[in-house]
Amino acid sequence: MLRIAIVGGSGYTGIELLRILKLHPQANVVAVTSRKYAGHPVEEVFPSLHGYSDLLFTKPDVTYLSKSAEWIFTAVPHKAAMSIVPQFFDAGCRIIDLSADFRLRDRRTYETWYQAHTAPEQLDKAIYGLPEIYRKDIASAQLVANPGCYPTSAILPLVPLLHSGIISSQGIIADSKSGVSGAGRSLSMGTLFCEVNEGLKAYKVAEHRHMPEIEQELSAAAGKPVAMTFIPHLIPMTRGILTTTYARLTEEISTDKVRVVIKEFYKDSPFVRVLPEGTFPNISYVRGSNFCDIGAKVDGRTNTLILVSAIDNLVKGASGQAVQNLNIMAGLNESLGLDTIPLCP
Amino acid sequence: MLRIAIVGGSGYTGIELLRILKLHPQANVVAVTSRKYAGHPVEEVFPSLHGYSDLLFTKPDVTYLSKSAEWIFTAVPHKAAMSIVPQFFDAGCRIIDLSADFRLRDRRTYETWYQAHTAPEQLDKAIYGLPEIYRKDIASAQLVANPGCYPTSAILPLVPLLHSGIISSQGIIADSKSGVSGAGRSLSMGTLFCEVNEGLKAYKVAEHRHMPEIEQELSAAAGKPVAMTFIPHLIPMTRGILTTTYARLTEEISTDKVRVVIKEFYKDSPFVRVLPEGTFPNISYVRGSNFCDIGAKVDGRTNTLILVSAIDNLVKGASGQAVQNLNIMAGLNESLGLDTIPLCP
Amino acid sequence: MLRIAIVGGSGYTGIELLRILKLHPQANVVAVTSRKYAGHPVEEVFPSLHGYSDLLFTKPDVTYLSKSAEWIFTAVPHKAAMSIVPQFFDAGCRIIDLSADFRLRDRRTYETWYQAHTAPEQLDKAIYGLPEIYRKDIASAQLVANPGCYPTSAILPLVPLLHSGIISSQGIIADSKSGVSGAGRSLSMGTLFCEVNEGLKAYKVAEHRHMPEIEQELSAAAGKPVAMTFIPHLIPMTRGILTTTYARLTEEISTDKVRVVIKEFYKDSPFVRVLPEGTFPNISYVRGSNFCDIGAKVDGRTNTLILVSAIDNLVKGASGQAVQNLNIMAGLNESLGLDTIPLCP
Amino acid sequence: MLRIAIVGGSGYTGIELLRILKLHPQANVVAVTSRKYAGHPVEEVFPSLHGYSDLLFTKPDVTYLSKSAEWIFTAVPHKAAMSIVPQFFDAGCRIIDLSADFRLRDRRTYETWYQAHTAPEQLDKAIYGLPEIYRKDIASAQLVANPGCYPTSAILPLVPLLHSGIISSQGIIADSKSGVSGAGRSLSMGTLFCEVNEGLKAYKVAEHRHMPEIEQELSAAAGKPVAMTFIPHLIPMTRGILTTTYARLTEEISTDKVRVVIKEFYKDSPFVRVLPEGTFPNISYVRGSNFCDIGAKVDGRTNTLILVSAIDNLVKGASGQAVQNLNIMAGLNESLGLDTIPLCP
Repeated sequence: MLRIAIVGGSGYTGIELLRILKLHPQANVVAVTSRKYAGHPVEEVFPSLHGYSDLLFTKPDVTYLSKSAEWIFTAVPHKAAMSIVPQFFDAGCRIIDLSADFRLRDRRTYETWYQAHTAPEQLDKAIYGLPEIYRKDIASAQLVANPGCYPTSAILPLVPLLHSGIISSQGIIADSKSGVSGAGRSLSMGTLFCEVNEGLKAYKVAEHRHMPEIEQELSAAAGKPVAMTFIPHLIPMTRGILTTTYARLTEEISTDKVRVVIKEFYKDSPFVRVLPEGTFPNISYVRGSNFCDIGAKVDGRTNTLILVSAIDNLVKGASGQAVQNLNIMAGLNESLGLDTIPLCP
Repeated sequence: MLRIAIVGGSGYTGIELLRILKLHPQANVVAVTSRKYAGHPVEEVFPSLHGYSDLLFTKPDVTYLSKSAEWIFTAVPHKAAMSIVPQFFDAGCRIIDLSADFRLRDRRTYETWYQAHTAPEQLDKAIYGLPEIYRKDIASAQLVANPGCYPTSAILPLVPLLHSGIISSQGIIADSKSGVSGAGRSLSMGTLFCEVNEGLKAYKVAEHRHMPEIEQELSAAAGKPVAMTFIPHLIPMTRGILTTTYARLTEEISTDKVRVVIKEFYKDSPFVRVLPEGTFPNISYVRGSNFCDIGAKVDGRTNTLILVSAIDNLVKGASGQAVQNLNIMAGLNESLGLDTIPLCP
Repeated sequence: MLRIAIVGGSGYTGIELLRILKLHPQANVVAVTSRKYAGHPVEEVFPSLHGYSDLLFTKPDVTYLSKSAEWIFTAVPHKAAMSIVPQFFDAGCRIIDLSADFRLRDRRTYETWYQAHTAPEQLDKAIYGLPEIYRKDIASAQLVANPGCYPTSAILPLVPLLHSGIISSQGIIADSKSGVSGAGRSLSMGTLFCEVNEGLKAYKVAEHRHMPEIEQELSAAAGKPVAMTFIPHLIPMTRGILTTTYARLTEEISTDKVRVVIKEFYKDSPFVRVLPEGTFPNISYVRGSNFCDIGAKVDGRTNTLILVSAIDNLVKGASGQAVQNLNIMAGLNESLGLDTIPLCP
Repeated sequence: MLRIAIVGGSGYTGIELLRILKLHPQANVVAVTSRKYAGHPVEEVFPSLHGYSDLLFTKPDVTYLSKSAEWIFTAVPHKAAMSIVPQFFDAGCRIIDLSADFRLRDRRTYETWYQAHTAPEQLDKAIYGLPEIYRKDIASAQLVANPGCYPTSAILPLVPLLHSGIISSQGIIADSKSGVSGAGRSLSMGTLFCEVNEGLKAYKVAEHRHMPEIEQELSAAAGKPVAMTFIPHLIPMTRGILTTTYARLTEEISTDKVRVVIKEFYKDSPFVRVLPEGTFPNISYVRGSNFCDIGAKVDGRTNTLILVSAIDNLVKGASGQAVQNLNIMAGLNESLGLDTIPLCP
């Protein structure tokens, strides 16, 4: 059994980690921390987990946690993460960090979009935790930087096509639509029910922090710098991201050929489902699961490739992907504890 | 492995059976029927099940099905059920019927609320499939009548209290609020998105067919005829029923004592969760799970007991309960394949 | 033109007052206050009002406001209201207070449910602003206490029946379902989108502060003290309250007769719509309007009368009713500026 | 008073016309037809209109209608429209057709995307009813083709920019998100509540019939043929369309300059609101109103202009725009009966 501690467990990614790991046959969550709820039973804070276990939230005590657990999930906000991750790192724990602090390999890029980086040593050692691309590096990593939710949905369909040169590295546009749980569980006017319900807006137009993260991975796939356009939208639903991506084709190609390229690239990746021609993803079809569904269509009139991808932002976009990384790091079957069926309707 | 056929598998209870049984370690779904989709792959009709299996929908051929499977789930509308169930019965299959056709033990009551009953012999042999009450009879039954969704939510909190005499058998009122999936997947103006969204209504006021079903079980618990008031409401959400029940207390009693009576009654029932005093159920806390959560409060000012119960109508209110019955009938652990954690948020 | 100031205009009742008064041919909003947004244009805080006017939010300066306006709407929280209303009162303004501070005629009752009352003199002079009951007193009042949203929905269907003696004053149960806007616009975990969406719960079970307000008016109608049961529920929708009320009949009576009694009672009240027999209210049918729709059904089996009433909590449950009171106080047509058609779908 | 008949009044655009025209000081709806509901009171079919009028639905009798009314709104499906519009045309009525049958000026384009056109004579005389562009022609038209909902949201922000040459006519991408009411009120599996709620999908990817309509107007503005990419998405909300448009800039230009060009172009158009720099539209801010809100941002990194536009699809995208056309045709103030404030929240 893997002894696991969750640091920062009272947000939506925290409860999702608890939900997934409870059903994982090799996982044993020995501690979960929350400054706010320290001393309170997990099942009191999250009544959906009533009867789940006797676990109480504790304060984050690194010394205690690194003795009790070999595996650490850090689910705290960026900045907080880079102050605590090095301590677990030095204590020899293996860490999956769900924050943004170790995702950008280039320190200057990080500091442009976030703030000064206080753990540059660990930054150099962190592996970007997108298993479909970096499976091998993840296996031996001590620190994995779990990808952002938007980037997961945008990168997966594009990498095989940039890699093969089918699409241009210029003019890529990703129009993402996200459910509200991606904004987290902290209090904010913008995520009150009545501010979101029956509304729809674009936000952080062409200035969202996930853009450099997407560009980093697209550049790696293209073998040259990629600048792209990324616009997120907030949708009145709880879970899910649907990203519609527009790319310029470099050659005449059929929709089916595009599908085959993507499918071949992910033939050993159990969580990528390339849908049949004419079928497009729907957030309903991935809810509660670790799948990333992908659909494609060539628009010959304008020489544009349209890609549609869908994930559950709390699973493949956060906690499910983190457990997928755990499995790979621990030498287990990548799907262990993650082979659930989407909850539909 | 249990060889299982699902008859009428293209509705919401059908897809939910497929979802649950896929994760069930002893279940093997060998056939699923749908007149409408015969010949089509299950994963084409329900893209959430993409990659699930090679199963195709077939036409309902009783001879073939009763040879291929020992266990039959009938998920067809009432009236259709009573025409097909006797055939499986005579072929020696064990049947869990999700329709209303075998729930009312009294044929005349059935015929008052529905239509002429064409399978009275099987009616006499059917067991009402509420495991928390009839576990023992279910174990040896050949035909189990899976309860209605509203009745499940209303009966469970009341039975221990009527049984113990704490509440009067007169003046019971159940005010139920249901998500839209309870209305099924057939086309109807009333379940179009724009007719339901941001709306809320009472319907079939004091004339819903689930009322005699509730009364049957309350009468059995009270040991005398119970007439009660049942009003269903339609809520703009997909899954879940929350029932608020009002009963008259026969004695002065504390909230805690009421809780203890219910808790004691269900001490061997893994899916009933009696919440701590001051905590009340929320549909969010049971979604996707087989739990029935119950909260209680004594209102001394008016001598009224208020009970609140919540279930996922597609799980504990239909397909999950059906699998729970399967487990009991097959001599397996009652929770097998059903120990999921609610999907929250 | 009526010169009007809105004190506390940045919540949901504030924006609703602005919306309604803008279309009111005799209203001129000369000032709107908000400590939080003082100095900011109204249209910046509420972009739906873009192009509406040049109005800025100001700090609440009683001296200035009572010189600039003759009519004051106070839309601040209870406790804050009773500290500011007396100042406007003494300055000779006529006031419609949307808080709870002047609704309970009995000071001790107020102090039991809220806190010490610091403006008992004004309390004695305040008129309960339910126009359908107190139209005449409202006309000459200097201070009107605008009713709570739940009470409006619960009191209107019951008063004619208690008044006529058709129902017992004992055993009345009101099961209310409310949209989330009733909880206001302040930050709270419980009204975050993901905490509410696809969920449903009862809250403040038998201990909500609107209960004594309902009882006060039911007692007045019955001519004797009424103790009743009131349970509010939170529904994943923005606007609307639907209340299902259960009462014990004192005599054998038809549904139609009940309807006639209610209809006759409200024959001069333009905003009460008694629906045809067999038709029941739906929140969708009153959204954005000042209507209170009422449906009724006698359940002869249990001698129970079921009443269903629906309002838009921000209109008839708050700001629309406040404008209705304004019209009456100012000697205008009660419906002026309120004859909108519900927005459906 | 304008005597008006609505042909095909039982869908969502029908009820919205009834709602808007009821508040219009110069409109008198003398007849409303529906084959399905002929003989039934309007207020029975649409209980939100309870108390509205004594109007009954009638069968569509052209002779009777063209005698009773001078103004005809046809709100029937395409194909049905072109069979009935010529009859009203020949009878001398002035017609606002809400279908697609008279929107495409080029008959061959129509026949490519729809079917054979059976009223080519009227097609030549129809004016495309986007008042902000064709106000003058609309004023004297006998037949106005009311634009589609998606086209309205996509065309308005682009026309001034194509006209001025700031953006390229190549590579335009419109990513539209629509509420469900745009799909109409007829029965279809795809618009059932549980099929839509908490889901999100792209549909008719690069093959929606509104694409040629958008291209027609963009080509007119650009003065040369425009081929563009248009992808609609279905969002779990009732009303509203938000369109995010991506265009290639032909010159270096600031966001503010772009805003000024749009604002200047629409300076006499009361329903176009160009939002301040940094503010972007939200469907919540236009709900129930005839506004089209527009926001813009130049992304210098990729030389891309991002436009965001929002409308209420049933108002500015259908019935409100139809009434705006009526006002212009009748020589009235363009805003008459349409100066409502958006219902927010």
